[in-house]
Amino acid sequence: MDFNTILQEIQEEIQKYFTKGKLANYIPMLTQANESDFAMSIITLDNEEHHIGCSDKKFSIQSISKVFTFTLALEYYSKELYKRVGHEPSGNPFNSLVQLEYESGTPRNPFINAGAIVTTDCLTSIYKNNAFDEILAFMKKVSHEENITYDEDIFISELGHGFHNFALINLMKSYQNIKNPIDDVIQTYFKQCSIMMNTKQLAHSMLFLANHGKDPFTKEQIINESKAKRINSLMLTCGHYDASGDFAYRVGLPGKSGVGGGIVAVVPKKMAICVYSPKLNVHGNSLIGTKALELFTTKTGLSIF
Amino acid sequence: MDFNTILQEIQEEIQKYFTKGKLANYIPMLTQANESDFAMSIITLDNEEHHIGCSDKKFSIQSISKVFTFTLALEYYSKELYKRVGHEPSGNPFNSLVQLEYESGTPRNPFINAGAIVTTDCLTSIYKNNAFDEILAFMKKVSHEENITYDEDIFISELGHGFHNFALINLMKSYQNIKNPIDDVIQTYFKQCSIMMNTKQLAHSMLFLANHGKDPFTKEQIINESKAKRINSLMLTCGHYDASGDFAYRVGLPGKSGVGGGIVAVVPKKMAICVYSPKLNVHGNSLIGTKALELFTTKTGLSIF
Amino acid sequence: MDFNTILQEIQEEIQKYFTKGKLANYIPMLTQANESDFAMSIITLDNEEHHIGCSDKKFSIQSISKVFTFTLALEYYSKELYKRVGHEPSGNPFNSLVQLEYESGTPRNPFINAGAIVTTDCLTSIYKNNAFDEILAFMKKVSHEENITYDEDIFISELGHGFHNFALINLMKSYQNIKNPIDDVIQTYFKQCSIMMNTKQLAHSMLFLANHGKDPFTKEQIINESKAKRINSLMLTCGHYDASGDFAYRVGLPGKSGVGGGIVAVVPKKMAICVYSPKLNVHGNSLIGTKALELFTTKTGLSIF
Amino acid sequence: MDFNTILQEIQEEIQKYFTKGKLANYIPMLTQANESDFAMSIITLDNEEHHIGCSDKKFSIQSISKVFTFTLALEYYSKELYKRVGHEPSGNPFNSLVQLEYESGTPRNPFINAGAIVTTDCLTSIYKNNAFDEILAFMKKVSHEENITYDEDIFISELGHGFHNFALINLMKSYQNIKNPIDDVIQTYFKQCSIMMNTKQLAHSMLFLANHGKDPFTKEQIINESKAKRINSLMLTCGHYDASGDFAYRVGLPGKSGVGGGIVAVVPKKMAICVYSPKLNVHGNSLIGTKALELFTTKTGLSIF
Repeated sequence: MDFNTILQEIQEEIQKYFTKGKLANYIPMLTQANESDFAMSIITLDNEEHHIGCSDKKFSIQSISKVFTFTLALEYYSKELYKRVGHEPSGNPFNSLVQLEYESGTPRNPFINAGAIVTTDCLTSIYKNNAFDEILAFMKKVSHEENITYDEDIFISELGHGFHNFALINLMKSYQNIKNPIDDVIQTYFKQCSIMMNTKQLAHSMLFLANHGKDPFTKEQIINESKAKRINSLMLTCGHYDASGDFAYRVGLPGKSGVGGGIVAVVPKKMAICVYSPKLNVHGNSLIGTKALELFTTKTGLSIF
Repeated sequence: MDFNTILQEIQEEIQKYFTKGKLANYIPMLTQANESDFAMSIITLDNEEHHIGCSDKKFSIQSISKVFTFTLALEYYSKELYKRVGHEPSGNPFNSLVQLEYESGTPRNPFINAGAIVTTDCLTSIYKNNAFDEILAFMKKVSHEENITYDEDIFISELGHGFHNFALINLMKSYQNIKNPIDDVIQTYFKQCSIMMNTKQLAHSMLFLANHGKDPFTKEQIINESKAKRINSLMLTCGHYDASGDFAYRVGLPGKSGVGGGIVAVVPKKMAICVYSPKLNVHGNSLIGTKALELFTTKTGLSIF
Repeated sequence: MDFNTILQEIQEEIQKYFTKGKLANYIPMLTQANESDFAMSIITLDNEEHHIGCSDKKFSIQSISKVFTFTLALEYYSKELYKRVGHEPSGNPFNSLVQLEYESGTPRNPFINAGAIVTTDCLTSIYKNNAFDEILAFMKKVSHEENITYDEDIFISELGHGFHNFALINLMKSYQNIKNPIDDVIQTYFKQCSIMMNTKQLAHSMLFLANHGKDPFTKEQIINESKAKRINSLMLTCGHYDASGDFAYRVGLPGKSGVGGGIVAVVPKKMAICVYSPKLNVHGNSLIGTKALELFTTKTGLSIF
Repeated sequence: MDFNTILQEIQEEIQKYFTKGKLANYIPMLTQANESDFAMSIITLDNEEHHIGCSDKKFSIQSISKVFTFTLALEYYSKELYKRVGHEPSGNPFNSLVQLEYESGTPRNPFINAGAIVTTDCLTSIYKNNAFDEILAFMKKVSHEENITYDEDIFISELGHGFHNFALINLMKSYQNIKNPIDDVIQTYFKQCSIMMNTKQLAHSMLFLANHGKDPFTKEQIINESKAKRINSLMLTCGHYDASGDFAYRVGLPGKSGVGGGIVAVVPKKMAICVYSPKLNVHGNSLIGTKALELFTTKTGLSIF
């Protein structure tokens, strides 16, 4: 398959969608993105790379960070994590308190905000004050990239406007499902959301999940095969908030989106993909990113189904 | 009617219920109450007073404060208040976030926590840093009692454990239904809940609501007749969380309970009543207080129905 | 008080509202009402009568029938009834299945459709095939009016379009909270809703509830004083679906509305009132009827608060 | 891979689970199943067959029928079907009316009861009185088996006890999302649930979905490739009610369960599987069937992730 040609076709076919969608506006900093940005990166397990668009431009990874923190917590803390976070689709928007209250503070899965905050609380229990440093170290390891950090302005913007996340963490604390001080956990959480990466780096970072848990180049087993499959399964059923079914239906690949405009996806045993475009659809997922991935699986037949 | 005899009968008949119910435990300070305490005070519009039990013992008024802050806000701010807080029974427990999320941050009524917090936010917009002082001044005026203050230990205990209230205020802030800084509003709210009063003082404080808004002794019109009736109506339909219907059904008087163990009630055009006993029923209302008021209306026929 | 003058003032002041509201459209027959109809009847316990408008025109009493079936069931069946129907405001529209499912088939109160259907099921258990005849006989007794029956066309229209009520009764049957065959119960229920009465007759029928359960003319104790007060309390907290709090707030009298356009209300120890106007507000209550009652209590001061 | 050995290992390892789970009891007929029954069938695209247990014993396919009716409706009616049924996980038990009411009568997906009833309504619009015959004809075609019919006793049992399904269809009718008479649609629906098949026949019937829509033996394209993938995607995200995420997590294959005790699953491009054991777990899925499939993917590594 000629991936360069496919990427070029995709880039052409998505042009008509640039008039649609809206930049994330729940924190002011995200409204400053460039609406016409587009990038897509493919990296195969045998180290073939294909990129198109602004694939060197960094953006905040936002909820894509949840895949990595969950991986980290699952490796060191799976028994407790399984008790405190479920793995069912929520059937509700990403920030719903309703489900959380009906289910007494236990989030449906680690890829909605509440579940990701509990995951970060688990990492805080393990790593104490170093939790964010360890998350960053893990990102560097899986991306093979030393030069990764978070954006201070975005972090501050999250802290000052993330009232809904403060509501979630306080609600879970009232149900004793947050073990560490709220301020410690929420700061680490907002920092991980503010990590800046480009599509090349993110595609690279997902390769171990396409390869049954093993880094295809260093051969390090980042997480065991069974857990890697479960993370992929979670991305498929829960990776796109209340549009997860639609994404599975249209794209047919495990993936995870972030409100910064990025989406990562894996083709098991073959490759990892990352696409970026900052305008979001009504479900909070990159509108053009979703479209590009749908075109990709239609053109290549590389759906898991 | 011989109210002293009636109070004595009530005190006897409630004895068997002291084994039931549980102290409030959502903040540690409230668990230190004396489980066997009981007090009941009746003050008529023509200044007849009847008391039984520990009617000089002060307890934290908790949600009873909502009646007074709502009165104050209604007088100075009614137009905006009507837009930001409803007046329908919630049909849900006092701290439900579910309703609040479905209805985009607009609390059902001013007597559930969320509605009372919005009310305190209104008072903060009017009185700025003096909000709590003004609330306290109002309590002193309506109770004819200078010696009223809040309990610092209870206040600190609320601040350190009131995660659910923090969740509520953050959720409403995310819907722009809180105008002032969260910390300012929540501190005033927790202080008003920590105000210490006894049944004599609270019964006295409710007389203006039994008297169509006018203080029966000073003749000051605290609030106009129409608003006074509406506050009574709200107490009847919403004064006891998700047991409001049951209270109206059994007692048949407008009233308001607090998790500190107090309940106030009014017999329109006749008298105000306050009862205290700290153990709560499953709905978070004083178990013996509710029973005592039910006995009172059964014995006297003084229901509004 | 000169009630004739007051009724005339009300009739004038409501004229401007005739452009507002909408006829009930959930069954076709109800859309045939005359939009400009208005009637109001007041009957006092000492047999003074005041009427204005088309007070001889009959309309289908619809949900007003719930007051009478509940009275009848409460007298003969109260123990079981208390277990199977609650007495809390629902906080939801009159036909909500949500609450019913969360609470396993137990309706919140007897004045929402689900609760009224359970009440009719109770009457079916007592009276078997004669259930509707007994309901009609009761209506004749309390109205002192032999010439009352139901409208066959409206009944057929309900049967053919009342899918939501069929959903409710089937859901409750699945929770074993309906004891008799669905068809028997639903037919009786739709017949009771189709009973045709005018404001004179309905006002008359409510007098026993204004008089602590006793017919003021025959002196027959229809229901005991305690139960009569509880029915009044239920009308106040639950009589107008999810606008019950608003009705209590604005009108301040126990009352019950029907989608046919009628509203009944009582002033305890004084009088019964019925108002009719077929266009409904968004909550399904007569728009002009609600307005007229609000004007009535404002002008007379006859609120219970 | 030696599938016979694997099936034998599975049969041994599941023995300890026979003490767990419960027969479906929502209709009386299903309680008559033999608790110790177990069967598992694997059929590959190149026509290798492996069976273990009572693979000739027929059971009612129940919700497994939803896969086939949805396939049929999708082929002839996809435009309208997409408007009337969603494709998101429900996050709720299979029979929830809550979601249906909040979303105005539009079911979340075709594999919960409400969505399957709308699907059957679509087929009734196409095939009129022949709807059930066409469904049965389709089952015969995809299973290569003439001798398939429904069980009259189970059908009658469903009709007499399926109150919850009657509630669902009436609710959707009230929202105009059912176009045909309720009795016609519900009878066809209950008949399709009562179709009797064994694991051999069901595994055979699923082969076209493992083969991108084409019957691997007759080479007939039952449904196009894109639609076949979408059906697989729907089975993965929504095939097991509110345990769909868990099934994807543990088993990692598209599948569909029925309360009769059957579960079908496909390994795309490789094979179809059916397992049967009548005792259900708390989510209404075959307890041993789920366990057997989990063992199967663990032993073979044949998850799609």
